[in-house]
Amino acid sequence: MKINVLGTGQVGRALAAGLAAVGHEVAVGTRDPAATLARTEPDAQGTPPYARWQEEHPDVRLVTLAEAGADAELLVNATSGSASRDALAAAGVGERDGLVVLDVANPLVFGADGLSLSVANTDSLAETLQRAFPAARVVKALNTVNSAVMVDPARVPGQHVMFVAGDDAAAKDTVTGLLGELGWAGRVLDLGGLRAARGMEMYVVLWWYAARAVGTFDLNVTVEHAATAPPTASRT
Amino acid sequence: MKINVLGTGQVGRALAAGLAAVGHEVAVGTRDPAATLARTEPDAQGTPPYARWQEEHPDVRLVTLAEAGADAELLVNATSGSASRDALAAAGVGERDGLVVLDVANPLVFGADGLSLSVANTDSLAETLQRAFPAARVVKALNTVNSAVMVDPARVPGQHVMFVAGDDAAAKDTVTGLLGELGWAGRVLDLGGLRAARGMEMYVVLWWYAARAVGTFDLNVTVEHAATAPPTASRT
Repeated sequence: MKINVLGTGQVGRALAAGLAAVGHEVAVGTRDPAATLARTEPDAQGTPPYARWQEEHPDVRLVTLAEAGADAELLVNATSGSASRDALAAAGVGERDGLVVLDVANPLVFGADGLSLSVANTDSLAETLQRAFPAARVVKALNTVNSAVMVDPARVPGQHVMFVAGDDAAAKDTVTGLLGELGWAGRVLDLGGLRAARGMEMYVVLWWYAARAVGTFDLNVTVEHAATAPPTASRT
Repeated sequence: MKINVLGTGQVGRALAAGLAAVGHEVAVGTRDPAATLARTEPDAQGTPPYARWQEEHPDVRLVTLAEAGADAELLVNATSGSASRDALAAAGVGERDGLVVLDVANPLVFGADGLSLSVANTDSLAETLQRAFPAARVVKALNTVNSAVMVDPARVPGQHVMFVAGDDAAAKDTVTGLLGELGWAGRVLDLGGLRAARGMEMYVVLWWYAARAVGTFDLNVTVEHAATAPPTASRT
């Protein structure tokens, strides 16, 4: 599949490399590719310059947001939450009827008193994007783990899960298939409509405190529950 | 220990019975004990009348909020989130220096578009109570599972966890001991200061969607993570 990833940070790079490694044709979209490639210093998070990563991944092209949006069969939003809406607009998502947008972003705000979200509780980043681009089919997934675990769930022991939410069943099936290719086969739990993205995004605050408590961000949860009849709605 | 539980609903009853069963002297506090005992119909949630439960638990006395607050060695807040501050005020928590308050409540709001929280993200119910009653020592725990699982973790398979948060280490130790008596020994993960209650309360939205997806509220999570050095900060 032709999959384009918006965002050149750690998450975008991890997903671009991971999706290319399982055989997809992948490009990374950014506002100004020349400027991105010209950088020679690590960014504020300590991420090495993109040009160095590009050398190691010659199969992944760097393109403009508009180019990334124009020919994607599936678009991944791996931009920061505060930049997501503008990035999707620049990618022309509003003109792509039915485009599947896999939203892995979180609306994180790091303040003096810890982590919070810029949208939460009665709304979610995923829902704001779906409302802004009603012709797109937004699916939330992968936002509940760090970038390394997104493409290599075996970094974490146990049968830990990946949540998905979205209003379009076929789009969720497409994303669930991709998740399987990345190692999440048999671990996907469909939470229902996109409104459930509220839970997935709010959970990230607990994830952050738990990661600090145990000493690693290579962390995820398994969902354990009593037997039910009829059998569970979990998806494989 | 003399443990008094504020709240006569399902959560208060489960904790009162569970704590009495492991040998504590337990009373339940409510605004108007006579009115509570006079009710003969199930409440809006379908919970049977308290008087029927009282017959089955003659060892648990029903007292006023003021009586419950006056002689408790440890107070459990099992009221609804919207009523918690008033209930603790009526219990005289402001006059009890150093009283350990185990806050198991969630600030739930059930609306037309699902579950949300009346306080979240940049604050938590637990923190609002700690600020309102600065002489108390508030510990958040047990809010992440339903009342049946609170006192019987074996209802759910697997090594699922109980999170705790609080600013006072000795108070957290006391609560962690109680949790062990209820079946949570070896399963307690200390998330740090009370601010982490934000994560614990926000997680409940994910818990609610996950429970609907799998078909039971007898559900909890295990925390899986990569090996760390030094060893994890999880507490037993």
